Order: sequence, then C-alpha cells, then structure tokens
Amino acid sequence: MNSRMNAFRSRLGGFAFGGDYNPEQWDRSVWDEDMTLMRQAGVNLVTVGVFAWASLEPAPGEFTFDWLDDVMDLLHRNDISVDLATPTMAPPAWLSQQFPDVLPVMEDGETFGFGSRLHFDPSSPAYRQAATRITTALAKRYSHHPALAMWHISNEFGPTAYNAHSSVAFRDWLRRRYGTLERLNDAWYTRFWSQVYTDWEQVNVPEVPRSWSNPARRLDFKRFVSDTLLECFIAERDIVRSYRDDIPVLTNFMRFYKNADYWRWAAEQDAAALDIYPDPGRDDSHIPAALNFDLMRSLRGEPWVLMEQAASGVSQWKVNNVKRPGRMRLGSYQAVAHGADTVMYFQWRASRGGQERFHSAMLPHSGTGARTWREVSALGNELPRIAEVAGADSTADVAVLFDWNAWWGLTETHGLPRNDFDYTQLQTDHYRPLWQAHHAVDFVSFGSDFGRYRAIVVPNAYLVDDRCARELEAFVRGGGTVICSFFSGVVDECNQVRQPAYPGAFRDLIGAYIDEYWPARDNETVNVSFADGTPAIADWWQDSIHPESATVLARYTSGPLAGRPAVIDNTLGDGRFVYIGTRLEPAALAAVLLGALADAGVRPVVPDAPAFVEATVRQTAEHRYLFLLNHSDDAPATVTTGERGVDLIGGEPVWDVVRLAPLQVAVIRVTE
Amino acid sequence: MNSRMNAFRSRLGGFAFGGDYNPEQWDRSVWDEDMTLMRQAGVNLVTVGVFAWASLEPAPGEFTFDWLDDVMDLLHRNDISVDLATPTMAPPAWLSQQFPDVLPVMEDGETFGFGSRLHFDPSSPAYRQAATRITTALAKRYSHHPALAMWHISNEFGPTAYNAHSSVAFRDWLRRRYGTLERLNDAWYTRFWSQVYTDWEQVNVPEVPRSWSNPARRLDFKRFVSDTLLECFIAERDIVRSYRDDIPVLTNFMRFYKNADYWRWAAEQDAAALDIYPDPGRDDSHIPAALNFDLMRSLRGEPWVLMEQAASGVSQWKVNNVKRPGRMRLGSYQAVAHGADTVMYFQWRASRGGQERFHSAMLPHSGTGARTWREVSALGNELPRIAEVAGADSTADVAVLFDWNAWWGLTETHGLPRNDFDYTQLQTDHYRPLWQAHHAVDFVSFGSDFGRYRAIVVPNAYLVDDRCARELEAFVRGGGTVICSFFSGVVDECNQVRQPAYPGAFRDLIGAYIDEYWPARDNETVNVSFADGTPAIADWWQDSIHPESATVLARYTSGPLAGRPAVIDNTLGDGRFVYIGTRLEPAALAAVLLGALADAGVRPVVPDAPAFVEATVRQTAEHRYLFLLNHSDDAPATVTTGERGVDLIGGEPVWDVVRLAPLQVAVIRVTE
Amino acid sequence: MNSRMNAFRSRLGGFAFGGDYNPEQWDRSVWDEDMTLMRQAGVNLVTVGVFAWASLEPAPGEFTFDWLDDVMDLLHRNDISVDLATPTMAPPAWLSQQFPDVLPVMEDGETFGFGSRLHFDPSSPAYRQAATRITTALAKRYSHHPALAMWHISNEFGPTAYNAHSSVAFRDWLRRRYGTLERLNDAWYTRFWSQVYTDWEQVNVPEVPRSWSNPARRLDFKRFVSDTLLECFIAERDIVRSYRDDIPVLTNFMRFYKNADYWRWAAEQDAAALDIYPDPGRDDSHIPAALNFDLMRSLRGEPWVLMEQAASGVSQWKVNNVKRPGRMRLGSYQAVAHGADTVMYFQWRASRGGQERFHSAMLPHSGTGARTWREVSALGNELPRIAEVAGADSTADVAVLFDWNAWWGLTETHGLPRNDFDYTQLQTDHYRPLWQAHHAVDFVSFGSDFGRYRAIVVPNAYLVDDRCARELEAFVRGGGTVICSFFSGVVDECNQVRQPAYPGAFRDLIGAYIDEYWPARDNETVNVSFADGTPAIADWWQDSIHPESATVLARYTSGPLAGRPAVIDNTLGDGRFVYIGTRLEPAALAAVLLGALADAGVRPVVPDAPAFVEATVRQTAEHRYLFLLNHSDDAPATVTTGERGVDLIGGEPVWDVVRLAPLQVAVIRVTE
Repeated sequence: MNSRMNAFRSRLGGFAFGGDYNPEQWDRSVWDEDMTLMRQAGVNLVTVGVFAWASLEPAPGEFTFDWLDDVMDLLHRNDISVDLATPTMAPPAWLSQQFPDVLPVMEDGETFGFGSRLHFDPSSPAYRQAATRITTALAKRYSHHPALAMWHISNEFGPTAYNAHSSVAFRDWLRRRYGTLERLNDAWYTRFWSQVYTDWEQVNVPEVPRSWSNPARRLDFKRFVSDTLLECFIAERDIVRSYRDDIPVLTNFMRFYKNADYWRWAAEQDAAALDIYPDPGRDDSHIPAALNFDLMRSLRGEPWVLMEQAASGVSQWKVNNVKRPGRMRLGSYQAVAHGADTVMYFQWRASRGGQERFHSAMLPHSGTGARTWREVSALGNELPRIAEVAGADSTADVAVLFDWNAWWGLTETHGLPRNDFDYTQLQTDHYRPLWQAHHAVDFVSFGSDFGRYRAIVVPNAYLVDDRCARELEAFVRGGGTVICSFFSGVVDECNQVRQPAYPGAFRDLIGAYIDEYWPARDNETVNVSFADGTPAIADWWQDSIHPESATVLARYTSGPLAGRPAVIDNTLGDGRFVYIGTRLEPAALAAVLLGALADAGVRPVVPDAPAFVEATVRQTAEHRYLFLLNHSDDAPATVTTGERGVDLIGGEPVWDVVRLAPLQVAVIRVTE
Repeated sequence: MNSRMNAFRSRLGGFAFGGDYNPEQWDRSVWDEDMTLMRQAGVNLVTVGVFAWASLEPAPGEFTFDWLDDVMDLLHRNDISVDLATPTMAPPAWLSQQFPDVLPVMEDGETFGFGSRLHFDPSSPAYRQAATRITTALAKRYSHHPALAMWHISNEFGPTAYNAHSSVAFRDWLRRRYGTLERLNDAWYTRFWSQVYTDWEQVNVPEVPRSWSNPARRLDFKRFVSDTLLECFIAERDIVRSYRDDIPVLTNFMRFYKNADYWRWAAEQDAAALDIYPDPGRDDSHIPAALNFDLMRSLRGEPWVLMEQAASGVSQWKVNNVKRPGRMRLGSYQAVAHGADTVMYFQWRASRGGQERFHSAMLPHSGTGARTWREVSALGNELPRIAEVAGADSTADVAVLFDWNAWWGLTETHGLPRNDFDYTQLQTDHYRPLWQAHHAVDFVSFGSDFGRYRAIVVPNAYLVDDRCARELEAFVRGGGTVICSFFSGVVDECNQVRQPAYPGAFRDLIGAYIDEYWPARDNETVNVSFADGTPAIADWWQDSIHPESATVLARYTSGPLAGRPAVIDNTLGDGRFVYIGTRLEPAALAAVLLGALADAGVRPVVPDAPAFVEATVRQTAEHRYLFLLNHSDDAPATVTTGERGVDLIGGEPVWDVVRLAPLQVAVIRVTE
Repeated sequence: MNSRMNAFRSRLGGFAFGGDYNPEQWDRSVWDEDMTLMRQAGVNLVTVGVFAWASLEPAPGEFTFDWLDDVMDLLHRNDISVDLATPTMAPPAWLSQQFPDVLPVMEDGETFGFGSRLHFDPSSPAYRQAATRITTALAKRYSHHPALAMWHISNEFGPTAYNAHSSVAFRDWLRRRYGTLERLNDAWYTRFWSQVYTDWEQVNVPEVPRSWSNPARRLDFKRFVSDTLLECFIAERDIVRSYRDDIPVLTNFMRFYKNADYWRWAAEQDAAALDIYPDPGRDDSHIPAALNFDLMRSLRGEPWVLMEQAASGVSQWKVNNVKRPGRMRLGSYQAVAHGADTVMYFQWRASRGGQERFHSAMLPHSGTGARTWREVSALGNELPRIAEVAGADSTADVAVLFDWNAWWGLTETHGLPRNDFDYTQLQTDHYRPLWQAHHAVDFVSFGSDFGRYRAIVVPNAYLVDDRCARELEAFVRGGGTVICSFFSGVVDECNQVRQPAYPGAFRDLIGAYIDEYWPARDNETVNVSFADGTPAIADWWQDSIHPESATVLARYTSGPLAGRPAVIDNTLGDGRFVYIGTRLEPAALAAVLLGALADAGVRPVVPDAPAFVEATVRQTAEHRYLFLLNHSDDAPATVTTGERGVDLIGGEPVWDVVRLAPLQVAVIRVTE
C-alpha cells in the first residue's frame, strides 16, 4: 500500500468527502456561508484551484496568491483539508496571446481557440515553461501549508494536438522507440502505398484527413499522445515532490478514456483517481460504472480516489437527466464498494455563469431548500459510520484483460473486416454477466501478473504483444482458464498480421486455425447449438474455425457456416482455453463464461442474490466487509450471504439473509 | 402611421402587386414582353437591382447606369413603380480580388469564397466603403426618378463573419457596452475555466470550435452580429435619405431569422417587410406563417410589406414541392389578413441559369401556358377588389412574448439541462391554439408596452432582462393575466443564473420556487390531472415546483414527481400568473391557455368556426374588415360571424353565417 | 479490334489470370514460394509496381531498379507476363517535402496530407515533372523486357484538387473552351447574383463551401477535373509509347466513377479496364456489376480488361462481407460473359500491414489452407477451358444512354426541383428489367452512333447537348424507338433551362409540353392506370404533362394530378418516343420498357429463363458462345435456349434445355 495514501487516510480519519471548490468565482461574502454549509454537510476535503490560473497569475510571472492564502487558511480553520490543484488545463489568455502556437491544431486541421479549456498543445515549449512556472510557484508557497493534504496535478489530461511542435515531439518519440528510419519503415510497413520515409523530417503527426492513415502510425500516435500527456504530469509531479515528498500526488482519470493508457499512468502516481458521470437517463449505467471502478482499483491493486461525480445531472449532453432520489447515494456507495476511499463531487457550489452553470453541485442554485442538498448532506453525515472500511483491499479470482493497445488496435486503425468495433461495449458485454453473477472481478493488462488468478477473460483482443501471448500461454499451461472472444491474437504490436494463419498469437492456444473472418450482414442472425443441445442465437461476426487439437463446445446450425464450430475448448498443459468465435446472445455468453469460471473453481461473493443486487467485498487485516447494493427502483431484494455480521450503516446484526429495500445499501462487517 | 408609407399606399392606390425584376439577366428583346405581361397580371410594383452590383459597377467607381436608366423609364412608361434596391448583398468579383479579407471567415474557420452571395464580412472597411460608393451613386442618380416608390436596402441581411475585422469591431462593441475589462469579465463570468481577459486585444469573436464557448460571450456575439448588420442598413438608409426624405426605406426580413433582432431593426425602417417561404410539403405551414405575419405587424404596430414569396416551389431544399392549385392565392390573402399591404414575389421571370433557376417565378419557364402564371395573373387582377383595405390596422387583447434575447439565451448558449430547445417550435406550439381558436394575436418583446393587453403569453423565456421582469410584474399587479411556460425567468441578460432560487426573476410572480429542472428521458411521458379531474399527458420536461403563495391547477399523477404540481396559478395584485411547469400535450396546453384568456375577458374574432378556418380583422377609421380563410383542401366550412356586411371579393352580401368552399377566402366589409 | 490487344491475347493464349503483385513488401525468401503458387493457380499475368515509387526512386532522380529487374526476370523465367505499372498515384515523401503545394487542397479547404495515396494536385508542375521522370526511367529500362505484356498507367485516376495550381489550370481550360470572358459570363449566367467576372484572375475553382456554387461553374469544373486527369494519363502513355509502340497501354477505371468521363478516356487507351468490388453483403450487387461490365464493353465496343476484383471481402467499408463459396467464380465468369478477356485481382498475396491488410487476396493470410485460395486456384485452372472465347465480341439491339454530362448535371449542380437524384440508381432501375428479361444491352453517350440500335432507353437525362437532341430526333424519325424517363431534356450543356417550355430539347420528341415538375412528398404515392386498365403505383415525382401530338399510355387516377397523363407515346417520322413522367413501381416500369422493346422487335438472348439467370452472348467470326449464369444461392434453373452446342466448362453437349445448379455457369459453344 502506498505510504503517502496511508498518511492521507489517517489525516482524514476515514473517507474523504467533498468536492471542487472554486471560491475565486464568488465574492468573499459567500465564503463564510460556504464554511458553515461544508461543515453541515460533513465535508472534510476540497479540491482548490483546478481552473484558477488566470486568478493566480494575471500576467506572466506576476502572482496574486493573497486570495488563495486566505482560502487555505479559512479551510484550515474549519478543519477542511485541501487537495490543491495545479491549474494547467486552462492557460490564461495572455499565454496564447503571446505564443499563438500554444493553441492546439485539431483533427480537422483547424486551430482550437482560446475560450474554453484544453486549449494547448502539450508539446509546446511555451506551454511547458509556463506550466512549470505556475507549478513551481504554487509548490513553493503551499507545500507546507497545514491544510494541504494532496496534490491534484492539472485536470483530466486529455488534449490531442496536431501542431508542428507535436510533429517534432512525435519524431523524437519515434526515434527513441525505433532508433533508425529503417526500423520505423519496417514497423509501419511503409512499402505499402509508397509511404517509405527517407528523412526524419518527413515524419509528421497523422495527416488531414486522419481517418485512414497508416494503421501502425495511428497506433504509435495514440501511444505518443498518452506518453506526452504523461510527460506533462510527471514534470509537474516532480516539481511538487521536490518541495515535499510525503503527500500523495495524482491526477484524475476519466471513464473509458481512450487517449491515455492508464496502466502506464497509474504507475506514476500515488493512487488512481476517477471522475465518473454515469448517465442517469440510462437504466444500466451502474454496470459500466462498476467496470470502471474495478479498473481503477486494478490499475494499482489498491484503493482509489473517486475525485468527481455529479450530485445530480450534468449539462453538456443533449438531455441531462437528474439523479432520482436515492441514486446519488447508491452510486457513491457503489464506488466505495469497489475500492474508493473518497466521495467527491464536481463541484461544491453551482456556478452562476460559465459553460457549466447547470452542472449540478453539492449546493445547488436553489440552495439548501433543494433535494440534492438534502441528499448530499445526509450522505456526508452518514459516511463516517463506515469509516473503518477506508483503506480496505479487495481480491478476485477472475480478471478481464483491458489494454489500451488492444483498444487502439481494434478501434483506431481502420481497415478491419468490419470497422464498427466498440471495445468498451465489448468489455461491458463480457463484464455484465460476471457482475450479475456477483463475481469479484479484477482487470489486467498485457504486462500484468496473471498468476494470481484462476481465470482470465479476454474480450476481442485483436492486438496483443508478444509478452502477453507468452504469459497467457504460461498461465494456461500452469492450470489457468482463459475464455477469449473472436478476432483475438491477430496482429502484433505494430498492427501487422501474425503469420502463417489466423488467429496468429493464439493459434496454439485455441488449438485451431481460422481461415476467414466473416462479418455478418446487418440484422443477420445464425443459430448455434451447444453440445448439450442448448440452442442460442449469434450475430455480427463468425470466425471460420478449423479445429486442430480443440474440441467443439457449440456449432452453427444455420447460416453459411452451418455445421462448423462456434465455440471451442482446448486443453494445454494443466489449463484450458475456451474460444468463442462469434457474438453470442447475452444469455449464451453468460453461460459460457460462468460455466468456465465454475469449472475453474471461481466462486461468487454471495451464494444467492437477484441479478440486480451488487455484491462486493473489501477486507483489511482485521475484517471482511460485505457490500450489498440493491439497484432496483422498486423491487426489494433478499440476499443469502452465508455469513453473519453487523450492518455498519443501519447498525443492526445480520444473520445470513439480508433484506434490502429498493436502492438500499448494506455494509456488513462480517463476523468470522 | 408612417407618413412615407401612407404616401406609398396612395401612389399605389391600394395594394402593391409584383416581384423582383432582374432585366439585367435578359436581352432587351425580352423587356417589352415583360411589360405586356406585367400589365396583364396587374403588376404595379417591381423590385429592381437586388443583385445587380456587377452590372452597375463593372470596375471600382465605374458605373454603367444606362441599362437601369432604360429599365426605370420603361417601367415608368408602363405605370409600374419601382422599389429600387441597393445591390450590396453580393459584392462584385473585383472587390474580393482587391481585398481578399472582405470574404467572411465561417463558423468552421474556413473562408467563404466568391461565387454565391453574402460573401463579405460586414465589419470589413473595404466592404463598407464600396457599399457606400454604390449606394451614393444610385441615390444620386435615381432619387428623383418618377418611377421610384421605395428603397430596398440590400437584401435579407444575414452574414455572420469571424474575421479579424470582426474581432476588432466586436471589441469596440464590447467596449461601448461594458466600458472596462473588469465589467466584461464580470458579465462573462470569466473566472470560470480561467477565461479572464487582461488586455482588450485578447478578446475575439468566439473561437473555433464555436459550439461550447462562454455563454455570455456567445450571447453578446449574437447581439453584436445583429447590431453590425443593422449598422450597415442604417449607413445605406442615411445615404438615400440624404437625397430624398419622403419615400419609404426598408429592407426585407426573413421568417424566424435568428441573426437579427428585428425589434431593433424595425424601429429603424419605414415598415417591416418579410420574405416568406412556407414549405408546401407540410400541411400546417400556414400556422407558423401566420405567426410570422403577426410578428411583422407587431414589430411596428402597423401594416407591413410582404416583399417576397414564391409563386410555387423553391429550389434549395432536398425536396421542393409545388404550391397546389389555390394555395398561392390563399397564402397571399393570409398575409393581407394579418396586415400586409403588398403581395410580392421572388421573382418576376424564372432565370434560365444560376443557382435559383428552378425557384418558381410569376412567369415560369413554360411561360403563360403554365398553371402558375394563370393563378398569379388572376390574383393580380382580383386584388384591386379589396383595395380599400390597404392601410387598415389590427388590434389584439392577447400578446405573445417573442424576444431575440430569450431565443439566443435558450438555443445558442449550450450547457442547459437539455440542449435541444427549439424556440420557434415552442412559440408555434403556444401560438397554434390561439390561432385555431380564432384569437387576434400580437407579439411583444422585452421593451414593449404590455399595458395595452389583457393577457400575455410567455413561452419558455429562459432569459429575461430586469426591465421585462419588472414590467411583467406591473402588468399582473395592474390586473393583467400572464400564462408562462416552464424554464422561464432563469437567467439575467448576461446569462447568469438569478439567485437565490429558480425561477429567478419570476419566483414572486409564480408564487413558488423550483429546486430542480427535470428533463424527461426520450419517449418518457407522465400523467397529469387537472383540478376538475381532467387527465392529460406531459413529456420532455418537468419543473420540480414548490408552491409558496400559488395554488395548484394540475398535478402529476405518475412518474418521479407524482403528487407534485404541474400547473400553478398565482394571484398578485389585481392580476394572475399561470405557470405551466411541463410540456403538456397540445389539447391540454390549449385548455390552459384558452381558459385563462376567457377568464381574462379575451374574445375570439368570430364566435364559431372550424379550427381550420382562419379569422382576422383589419380596420380603418371607417370600416372593419373580417377576413375568413378556409385552409382545408377538401372540407367546406360554415362560420358564424355574428355580423353582416359584404364580401368584397365575391361582391355578395353576408348575413351572419358564411360558407366557404375549400381554400376559399372572404373579405367582409362589416356593416356596423 | 485493337491490334495491340490482339497481340496481347495471342501472347496470353486466351484469358489473362492473375493480380497485383507487390514483391517489394516481402523478403526475397518469399518470392520463390510466390512463383510456385502462381504456377499452381494458373497465373499468367501480374501487375507490378502500382505503388512502388518510393521503392524505385528513393531520392529524386536516384533509381533502385535492381529488385524490379530481378522480379521481371523471375516472372519471365516462370512464364508469367507482366503488366508494368507507373507508380504515380502515390508520390514518395520526398516530393511533398520538397514541394508542399503538390499536396491537394480538399473540398473543405484543408490540405490532404502525405500518408495514404492520391496525395497530389494533378495540376501541380512539380508533380507532373516527377511523374514524367519516373515514367521515362521505367519505360527506358523495361520497354523491351521480354516479360512485359502491357503498360498500366498509374492507378484508378481520381484526385480532385482545389489548389492555386488548379485554379491556374482551370482558367487555362476555360480560356480554351470559351475564348473570352464575355462568353464565359454568358455560359455561366453570371449576371445572377452579381457573379460577373471582369478579369481572368478572378476565376477560380469552386469556392468553399462548394455545395451551392454556380451550376455551370460546377459543371465545367467536373469536366476540367476529368480532362486534367486524362492529361496526366496521356502524358505518361505518350512516354511509354515513345519507347515501344506495340503493346497495350491503359489505366484502370472504377465502378460508377463520377470524376472521369470514361467515354473520353476510353478513346485514349488500348482497352477499357475496370476495377470492380460489388458488395457481397447485398443480394443484388451482381446487377449493377453487369451494368458496369456492359458499360466497359460499350466504351470502345470491344472486349475489355477486368483489372481488379477481390478474391473475397474488402476492408474499407463499415462491414466487409466475404464472398460466399462459389460467388467469386460466378462473378468472374460474369465479367467474361460481358466481354472481359482477363480475370485479375487486387492482390496476389495479402499484405501483413498497411491500410489494406485485411483486403482479401488470392493468397490469404492463412495461406493455402484457406477456402479462398482453393477457389482462386480452381478457377485459374478451369479458365483455359474457355480460352477460345477470348477476343469474342458482343452485339445488342437496345442501348441505354449513360453520359457523364447528364450525370453531373443531375447530381452536381443543385437547385433542382428536388436535390436527391441518384443517377446511377436511376440507371440501375432502368437496366434491371432489361437484365432480368435477358436482353443484350449496350450503353451510348451523347456522341454515340444511335443508328446501330432498334431502341434507346434514356433514364432521366436532365442535361443533354444539342447534338444528342438532334441525333435522338434523327434516330426516331428514322424508325427508332426511344423510351425516356421524366425530367429529361431540360437544360443545355451550360445547365441553362431550354426555352420556351419544358421539356426543352425533347418537347417535339415527346409531343407535349410540361408546365410544372411536381416532386412528391415523402412517402406519397399516386395511382396510375394504363390504357388497358392495368393499375400501378408511382411516387417521387410527377411531370405535369400537356399532350400536343402525343397519345396517353397511362393516366394518374389519384393525387393532385388525377386524370392527367403519366406515360405518353408520340409518333415522329417512322419512329416512336415513349415518355414516362413519373417514377413507376418496378413492375410497371418493366412493362413499359419491355413492351416498347418487343414492339421495336428487340428479342432477348434466350426465349425462356428465370429472372435470376443471366444470359449473354459473345461471338467470334467462327462461333457464338452463350453464357448462362445462375445467380440464385439455392434455386436450380431450367433455361430454354432454343439452340444446341457444347458446354465448354463441363465438356458436355447441350440440347435446347440447360439445367443449372445454384451458382453454376455454362459457356456453350453454339452449333449453328
């Protein structure tokens, strides 16, 4: 466990509760009311300064720290700790006025102007210098302020730029990766369409239009974008660390964010931190939320930080639904159930103006008379009841492979048998049945240690690197179970097709070769029959599988591949590789996954519960905590836990069976 | 009444009938036929020169007026008056050749090139100079030509430009509005996302992408665009006025046009003038047409000019349906019924080439053998029968608030609880039941005198300025009735949320506060029950209303807010404020509106008529004229008027009950 | 017949079979396997060097021909002939590095960057010079190589550029076409919207946005684009011809390609050549394929070259379906049935990387174990059985008018009564019933000799030039039958409406005038009744027809034009002009077309066959060859041929009736 985070948890005495606090938007007359209401609501941590650059440095090198001094002092006097942000995601107007090429060139070739946020090219030297200056000034001044509990480096790192500076930086990155142009040309397969580079100066960021560039170049560009943003993070992190080394430094991640390989990022920070805005307009948005929570926990194998959520609706979508009564509380506990040690919001007080004036806040426009305020303050006052859970770990016997390289390969490089793959939807399709069956789930990447698990689920890993292929083989030979879906193992890390036959890296693992990938026509379905006669429907895709050592678990009974294998099962060493060559309907996919997990000895968290109940465990050296959450709006739930304990929220003892009203939560300290 | 327009009417001896005449596109051999056919068709006014700049000034400062001299003389000899246009909406090629930055930069950052029209930045000094030169030359030469009856300044002012010149002009406009950067920063709430300006040079037109700029900046930019175009209009108007002051000067407006605040524009011209192209492919396009006609009449409270309509179909849409037999005549009388004193078309003779070659014309490609020609010439010969109506006024007891600031606020500033508001659709939704109930309707704006009315309808006025809020309160306290729909009164003129609770400016007026705005999910409906038990369906939006002094007219009986108020009624002083917190189904909205109007003593134009019959009144000092129009394609209509008189078109006496065949019109001079 | 193509056929000894061969993408170790497998598959021709510029000229003027020498020698040693390509469709990185303005400006104003292909402005002098240099070097070195059998000039000429160089070239092209600015202004009708040009320097390629430019300017720009690309072709052709004059020189055309007027192109090359990729995901894609094949044959009235097809799926679409078993063979024979003398693929061996790595190949990623390989190699070994057919001709009694000017007029110039015309769909709608009725069909253009045919079908020829109008009249007067669909003859070659009435050029031909074009509303249908009482449904469009000399074949019985003519028939001289004024449902359109053909004495290829069977004839001086292809996946077919002969594929005699299993083909040498 990260020692800085341990110190942070100790300081907070359990869970952190609070949100982004932007006092620079308000008259000082409001600040006192803020303090009173924060205390009423149980706030013990606020994030300050995220977009305050213009308020802190109104002219290059001229700082106006007085107001921030006062805010820090005021918060400290009110026993509220500060997560202090560097404001570098929105440079002031003077920066792009002085250096117009700080502004990023967008995908369509136009320059993104000043007037919102993210308006910089992360490779711009002028931007880097200015970010260093403000970060250094902040670190110098506040590193030892008693209110300081955490550093929040910039915010939701995200921008992709196609500027001349980006091309220079991309070239440098490529030079470091490949050394010579010859190796670059090989990796990018540039003899195709006469794309050979003979001078480094010819190499640029992908050209306009960027939709069908060389697939290896696109892939490397995604890697470069992630690495370049990470470089910005590290630069700021190292500055604040140089002034004080004992408090956590992190930045906030986003839900399913494609431009940053969070496996690499998490390793550089003291904790993973997530901003999550599930759509209240969708009935099932808590399932991809759970996936993202498990991903956050898995990134470092530790508790994580819920840095932002909405108290109710957001404002950027076409329709921004509110969180209905009880949903915000439920969603907050859900994050905790999956390892979060904080419950934080964007933002404390709703802005009167600006782009996000209707983004909900802890303290809404209509003030303390509003439902949202009542729910927020109730939660802030309830959360301390489970304070002992903060810092508790989680474990799982099954892991899902979620890797940014696989994602990029499948969705960014075009020219596939079909070009409408949705990696995060496929991930969710494989995660949902595990969630509904109450399995504890971790995520792993190409570089992870698979040995800790009994089973690995591999959703559609079109691109895998050699190491991952080797490790998967070792895992299976050592007794592990892999369940893998179609179009996996096909290309190497340069997006080049592995030869001499599909599915490339996995041919020996699946014990079969595939001669063709058959995308289905729109609305075309085929019938599948399992060995025990169970029928199922499949659609969207069919691998044309030729078993070598594999046995057949299911065959097509209609369509162009009738009689051919749909799902196969291969034994290798002491383990097993189940390969699903089509898109099975959800129930059939669930049956294959859950059957293989059961065979592998993976057990769910609770023996019996409705599918709409979520069940997770966190544990400390002393205790196991069982979280049960009823996600139904109207159905009460009965859960058989097989355990006894005490519900920390209600304070009542639990004997095996737990009854949960709709939207209710139990956090049970299990009596061993 | 405007004296210049009175003189114009006298000159024309009733209604003006004619269209755009572009003889510069044709050999002189055609002109004589034009004269013959114009006389056959009853044409007494043509608009000349709208896009003739290149034909009038082939090189900078070199004029070729000979052909126009001949055209003016020819028309005059044929007793046809001229509405002479300045040709400034389409500068010649030589202007942008010499000054490339005259060409406007578009929303996407690209420069709009020469080759269609509107190809100029209205803030460009070179454009302004050139427009002044040609306008001066025209005014000097033709001001006292005997054919001249009206000046037509440019055409459908419209272009929005994002050039450097626009940024300079925008800064000047802002400096005039705010005086200091500090006030600008406050108004724009720039501390949000670090958007603070510290130098006027940092302030530009909204940046690319322009979709989610600062909402106050977007709002001010819309105001600036309107004002800048108006500046162009005024500059030309003042030139022609300086040569002769006794004839009307105006420009033509467009249907539901967002870029020009026509309340401000109408005050600067001698009459409102409208170009209208209702879609013949839609069965109900005559209702928004009526709305636009009433808006035109209300802008100055006077008769107005129908400057352009199509004789049949247009050519710019995907599908351009023709006007079926009788529809063009009906639509022409409809404009007159709502106060138009002219019936004009674009254009006289269909062009053989160019972008609009298939836009219908009074004289079609197939000539006098065509149905359209027969209907046009019949109308031109029939219209004199109602000549006495020209100049007649209209009055109404109910007005609808239609303000460009409210429109811009709701639809241009993004970041709302839902971002798919359609202001003109909402206006139409509120106007339709009044139209179907045969009410005379005016429109009002923030600065209007509400005291003339018994009732004001306020459709979704998200943004209202302080003055409007004050005036509405005074109106209600003085005995007026307001019926107002959801999400009104929320922000001030800077788009900042009014505090301390929703609905901001209207909290005391509605006698309730709202803690949350609940957009509905797609396809979600809720049930509503009125006090008398009448059920209704609502969707799209729900205010969460907490009555203070208001009583409840209807409540939700299903959905997340079941039991809570949907429609409330507040008494204030001697008046009443009815607030509708959701989108009611049309029949229920009609019931609320019409019930409140009845209570307020507002009476329809006729006591009994089918909903598809339109009924309006125009009146002079001597007479009342009742217009009845049957918009059904196949149903005859019986209308009880409660009056007797004579139908000016048919020439027959009318006794109380009027029978109208499908698509027929009666214009009844009422016998008092 | 073209003598160079005759020599080519002699060299190949029948049909050419092979594909694009890109050995520069592979280690030499693979080349020997390539040779072995090519011989196994019956390959006798490969296209080499299409995208090899960077591999042949790594720096300006420095050539690396060694590998190509070896490839040519190797192929020659293996008895495989070479179709040697100039590599000019993908210039190397060094060219745009040195001359950035070689890169083309796209429709949206952005510059298309280096990184895929087509990245050049065909008007760029630097590009032209570089293309000349590499072409000259290749011609010099390989013109007399014994493997050389054909020159393949560049590839799928296509790019449209909007650069400054393009504007210069466009001006030159216009100067050659019009001579004076006055004539240009007349042709472009520039007095509309003040578009008059007073200096050649003002004339540019159509401006951004290019969607509603002057229609004559758009039309001329399309002509210019086609001519400019053709200029590039001719330049390279003349170079290779100057080194050796006895082998065919051609480039490959594309299916329904709008940017090149292939009638003009075909005249400049030794054979028409086509790349075709029918969508295996659509059940009827073989019908537009047949249309394109017939068009290719008609372009020069000779056998043609199938230069590229896919062995199975492609990779650039959203969903890329495979060709199901038997479909690739059937499609290959279909091309031959319509006059192809080659069966070629893109490409020989599937690339491991690059944009088209999943484009299917003769030798797939999974190698000789793959189904596709089995089908390809089987076909290559089967094709020699019909070797005697190579070079055979075809004839037809009916022709369809397919002209690029008509296409551009209808779909590129906007401002029509409806703006969603789809010319190739309309062509297909008219072609399909002819195909299903087993008619032999030719295509003709404005400049064609119509006298060879009994009947001409004219689908929606909105734009026709004077010559075509004259020739059609002469054709009818001379006894021919024309069947023509709505909105034809309307404008001249400058896109100007022909006066004094619709349908302009065809008024005397149809014996009627049209006063209005009535687009239908969405989903609106009307009923039609033929003279014999047969009812039909029509939609989308109605001409309002006023017969003068014509008789009525069908009338509307519902809708706004009920009672008016829908289809008319006019006798002129010894011939007949049938005019269809609406979009008839397919069966009714078929009845009109087939009825008129029958009356004209046009007979189908076979007297009786199911609609899903295709029947064509090729003939030499010695023999007639009847091709029968069953396109059904599951239905066997019985065809009555009325002839006897021998099936060259199966080797069995045929007596009148032929039975074809699903997807089967018979090539019958008819015994006279």
